[in-house]
Amino acid sequence: MLVKEKVDQAVGILQEYKTDCWITFVRESGMMRDPMMDYLCPADMTWHSAFIITRSGGTHAIVGQMEKLTIEEMGVYQTVSGYVEGIKSELLDTLKAINPRTIAVNYSVNSEVCDGITHGMFLTLQEMLSEIGFEDRLVSAEKIASSVKARKTGTEVERMQRAIGHTLDIFSLVKDFIQPGKTEKEIAAFMTAEAERRGLGFGWDPAHCPAVFTGPDTAGAHYQPTDREVERGHVLNMDFGLKVADYTSDLQRTFYILEAGETEAPPEVQKGFETILTAIEKSRGALVPGVQGVEIDKIAREHVVSQGYDEFPHGLGHQVGRFAHDGTALLGPAWEKYATKPFEPIEENMVFTIEPRLMVPNRGTVTVEEMVLVKAGGAEYLAEPQKELLLIG
Amino acid sequence: MLVKEKVDQAVGILQEYKTDCWITFVRESGMMRDPMMDYLCPADMTWHSAFIITRSGGTHAIVGQMEKLTIEEMGVYQTVSGYVEGIKSELLDTLKAINPRTIAVNYSVNSEVCDGITHGMFLTLQEMLSEIGFEDRLVSAEKIASSVKARKTGTEVERMQRAIGHTLDIFSLVKDFIQPGKTEKEIAAFMTAEAERRGLGFGWDPAHCPAVFTGPDTAGAHYQPTDREVERGHVLNMDFGLKVADYTSDLQRTFYILEAGETEAPPEVQKGFETILTAIEKSRGALVPGVQGVEIDKIAREHVVSQGYDEFPHGLGHQVGRFAHDGTALLGPAWEKYATKPFEPIEENMVFTIEPRLMVPNRGTVTVEEMVLVKAGGAEYLAEPQKELLLIG
Repeated sequence: MLVKEKVDQAVGILQEYKTDCWITFVRESGMMRDPMMDYLCPADMTWHSAFIITRSGGTHAIVGQMEKLTIEEMGVYQTVSGYVEGIKSELLDTLKAINPRTIAVNYSVNSEVCDGITHGMFLTLQEMLSEIGFEDRLVSAEKIASSVKARKTGTEVERMQRAIGHTLDIFSLVKDFIQPGKTEKEIAAFMTAEAERRGLGFGWDPAHCPAVFTGPDTAGAHYQPTDREVERGHVLNMDFGLKVADYTSDLQRTFYILEAGETEAPPEVQKGFETILTAIEKSRGALVPGVQGVEIDKIAREHVVSQGYDEFPHGLGHQVGRFAHDGTALLGPAWEKYATKPFEPIEENMVFTIEPRLMVPNRGTVTVEEMVLVKAGGAEYLAEPQKELLLIG
Repeated sequence: MLVKEKVDQAVGILQEYKTDCWITFVRESGMMRDPMMDYLCPADMTWHSAFIITRSGGTHAIVGQMEKLTIEEMGVYQTVSGYVEGIKSELLDTLKAINPRTIAVNYSVNSEVCDGITHGMFLTLQEMLSEIGFEDRLVSAEKIASSVKARKTGTEVERMQRAIGHTLDIFSLVKDFIQPGKTEKEIAAFMTAEAERRGLGFGWDPAHCPAVFTGPDTAGAHYQPTDREVERGHVLNMDFGLKVADYTSDLQRTFYILEAGETEAPPEVQKGFETILTAIEKSRGALVPGVQGVEIDKIAREHVVSQGYDEFPHGLGHQVGRFAHDGTALLGPAWEKYATKPFEPIEENMVFTIEPRLMVPNRGTVTVEEMVLVKAGGAEYLAEPQKELLLIG
C-alpha cells in the first residue's frame, strides 16, 4: 500500500535530516487539503487531526472520535487516538512523551507543496504548545516534506507511466483530427472526450487541460482554448496531462500545418523545433543528482538565446507527481517568484518536466515538454520523446 | 454572474465592518484552494496572486502574466496587473496607493473557511509589507470572509434547492430498494449510481457519501458503508449530500424495517423518532438572526436528554454552501474543537443543518437532518422535512 510505503520512507528521511518529530496538523481537509495528507492519510479529516511520525519510527494519529475507525483500518499508525471535545490534551500528552528537540510542521515560504498548514492552524498549534513550553521547538518541515514528495517510489513511477501512456495515445489520435478550419476548442473537446471515455482524470483545471494554441497570435500558456481556427503555415502546440490513480502526466507537443505543396515545415519552423530539441537534450544530459536546477535551466535558456530567440518567460521544468506542478526543487532561473526553488539540490528519483519554448515569427510557438526521471547515472525519459514535428497534411 | 454578485456583496461587508482593504493572497490554488477563491476567482492561479477589494469599492487583481487574460475576461476587477518575475513591486505599489489603516487577510483560529492563507504565504506577505512599513496593519479577515460565505444570495439558495431536490428524489427511490439482507454497501452503491446517472457531484468524500448505517452495532457517523446486512426490527439511517453547480445538500433520513406482522415501528423506536422531530422543530423555532448557535444547540440537546437519551456527540447543526460543512457560526455546544463558532451571532440568509441524533438500544440510531434558511422572521425549511419514519415492509 502506497501510504505504508511513504510513511516508512518518511521515517528514513527524518533520520537523514536528524529531525526528531514531524507533525501534519489539519482540519476539514476536504476543503483545503495539506498536500502531505495524500501520503499520510488518503481520507479527509473533519476535525483537528494530527499525524505524527518520529525519528525512532513511531507513528501516531490523533483524530475526532467519529473518524478513528477509518484510520485504524488503514493499519498504518501504531497508535490511533480519538477525542470528542478537543484534540489538545491528547496531542500534548503524545508530544510530551516524545519530547522532541524540534517539531517539524508543514510551512514554507519557498515551496507550496510543503506549505500545507494554514496560518490559523499554525497559531493554534503554537498556542497549545506554549502550555507545555514547546512552542519554540516548531520548525519548518520543508526539507522533509519536499523529499517525501520528490523521491518517487516504484509504485509512483509506474502510475505516472500509465498516465503518460494515455497522454501519448491521445496525441496520436488527435493528430488525425487536426485540420485547417478546426478550432482550438474543437481540438480540445476531442481530446477531453477521449480522456473521459477512458475514465481518466485531468492533470490540472479542465478549463485549460488540454491547452491548445495555434498560430502566431495566441494568448500564451495557461489560457483556455479559443475559437481561433487552425490555418496552413501555422505552428500549433498543445499542453496536456492526465491522472491515473492520483498521479499525473504533463506533456507538450508541437505540430505544423503544411501549406499546399509543402512536404515539410519551412526552414525557420524546422530551426525552431531543432533548437527546442537540442535545448532539451543538453539540459537532460546535465540533470544528475546533486546539481542545482538553476544550472540546468541556464543550459537550455542560453541555447535558445544563442539561436537568436527570446528567452522563455518561465522556468525550464518542474517536478510532477500527484499534481502537474508538484515539488520544491525546480529547473528555473533565479527569479523572485521561484524563491529558493532553483537552488535546491536535485535528488535521485525526482521526476521533472523539461519544457523550453520559443516563438517563430508569423508561425506560432514551438514548445515540447518531456518528462524525465533522475537516476544516479543521469535523467531518463519516462516515455518516447518527440523527435519530429508532427505534420498535418 | 455569481462572482460579480459576491464581489459587490463584499464591498458592502467591508463598509459594514469598517475595514479599508481585504486581500486574498494565493499561489498554486489548484493544489490548496483558499475557500474565498470560489467567490473571487473561479479559475485556479499558478503563481503568487492577490485579489484586493477596498472599502471604497476598488477591486484589483495582480497575477502572473500568463494568467492575466483569464482574469481580465472575467470582467469583475477594475484593474488587472500581470507580472513575470515576481509579484512584490506591483503588490506594494497597489497597497501604497490604497494606504489602508488595516489589511484583512484570510486567517482564523476559529473557522477553517476563513483560514485560507497558509503560514508560508502569511510570512511572505508580512515580509513584503515590512518593506513599506505596513506589516503591522495585517488583521484577520474572519468576520468578512464569514459573512461573504454565510450570506447566501438568491443564486446560491436556488442552487442548493436543486441539490436538495435530487437528494430527496434519491431517498424516495432507495426506499423501494432497501430490504432485509441488502448490505449497507449495496444500498450506498444504488444511491451513488443514481447520482452519477444524473451527472451530479457528491457533497463530501464519496467513500462515505452516502453514509449508511443499519442496526444497533454501527460504526458511528463519518464511516463508510460496510457489508452489514439490513435486518428486520432494526433502524437504518443515511446521510447524503449532492452538489449542483458547486452548491451542496446535506440531509439525513431514518428508516425502520418492519418485523413480520408489524404495521408500524415499536413504541421505543417511535418515541425516539418523535423526540428527534420535536428537537428539530423546537430548535428551528428559536433560530432567528442575532441569537447564538450555542443557545439553539442547547434547546435540542436538552430535549433529547429530557427524554432519557444520551446527548449527541456532535453539534446540532452547521452551515452548508459550497461544502457540506461551510461556515463559521455553528449550532453547537461550547466544546474546545468548536472554538468560538457557537458564539457567533446568527445572520439572515445563513443556511444551517439541524441534525440531532439518539440511539435506541438494540434497534439502531435515529437521526434526521434538515436544512433551513434563516430569514428575519425565523428559519424556513429548504425542503419538505421528514415527518414519518420511512417504513420498509
